[in-house]
Amino acid sequence: MLGTRERILTSTGELFRRQGYNGTALKQVTALADAPFGSLYHHFPGGKEELAEAVIKSSGQAYQTLFELIEDAAVDPGSAVTDFFDGAAAVLEQTGYVDACPIGTVALEVASTNDRLRQATAEVFASWVDTAARRLASHGVAPARSIELATLLVAAVEGGFMLSRAARSPEPMRASGRLLRELVESELATVRTVTTTT
Amino acid sequence: MLGTRERILTSTGELFRRQGYNGTALKQVTALADAPFGSLYHHFPGGKEELAEAVIKSSGQAYQTLFELIEDAAVDPGSAVTDFFDGAAAVLEQTGYVDACPIGTVALEVASTNDRLRQATAEVFASWVDTAARRLASHGVAPARSIELATLLVAAVEGGFMLSRAARSPEPMRASGRLLRELVESELATVRTVTTTT
Repeated sequence: MLGTRERILTSTGELFRRQGYNGTALKQVTALADAPFGSLYHHFPGGKEELAEAVIKSSGQAYQTLFELIEDAAVDPGSAVTDFFDGAAAVLEQTGYVDACPIGTVALEVASTNDRLRQATAEVFASWVDTAARRLASHGVAPARSIELATLLVAAVEGGFMLSRAARSPEPMRASGRLLRELVESELATVRTVTTTT
Repeated sequence: MLGTRERILTSTGELFRRQGYNGTALKQVTALADAPFGSLYHHFPGGKEELAEAVIKSSGQAYQTLFELIEDAAVDPGSAVTDFFDGAAAVLEQTGYVDACPIGTVALEVASTNDRLRQATAEVFASWVDTAARRLASHGVAPARSIELATLLVAAVEGGFMLSRAARSPEPMRASGRLLRELVESELATVRTVTTTT
């Protein structure tokens, strides 16, 4: 069994996915984590804000690892794009459209109301963009162009979660993945052409 | 001066942009609207849920009209894409990253917690996708392909708001717009080639 701190983090992530930051009460967290209420303040003396910051950071790291695993397993960068988007769509379908990004809802809720948490979400998004951009650059895409493409990939995943959850349909996520795969493949074809002809 | 009902709707939209659905108290709404608290229940007997549904619908319609105006004014469909994304980025910068989509935050908050509001957001997203898809189809893009492209455009706008607000930077929104313009232009070039050669 996970330790109390880890159970609190996992439960908070689950509640943030389902109902966001403002919609989550600390008593729900400790009930779901099967932890005494006081243990929350023992592990997170700063209360809800400190807990949220820890969840944002740990979820951000977990998603980054997931992305890297999918990329490593994919036959090529284009397949990695659809593997990731189709995987996210499948998880949405299997979980009744609950299990989406644990950071997205919170990011929008706090962007203009809590600067500490806003910065935590910004750092996570930046780390995802950076990871995807490095991968693209390793295939020969120019650095600035890699960052642009990686930014659109992350934005489209987040928007895909929003549209698919609202419609209770995997199609927005899948359609976004298909088109972005084309965009990545056409970019890599350009790189190959340039490499071949020079 | 706007009537009380309209002032309540406008104020609620403003508060939803800044702090979302769960973060907005009805007393804040009537204070911002300069309306007596009782007038809220007079105009929206169903309280917060009914008010939110009305705001989602009216904001959805307002954004659709804005999109159509931008498209009508643009020299071509590709320019319309960057005009819209760059316009959204400029408004974000001018308003301290507050004035974004009034529906996005609410859509994520209610997706798994309030089915009436979830459906209202789904209908708005569907109407935006439909509007953009019809425009693309009118330029010769195949219907199914138009829907895919329009879906990605809407998803990327919503994700762009999220990333730009978190980073307090217009760049995620602008970068997404640049790449999607390329995607739309390459699609239209394909359509023209097919039309010319057949």
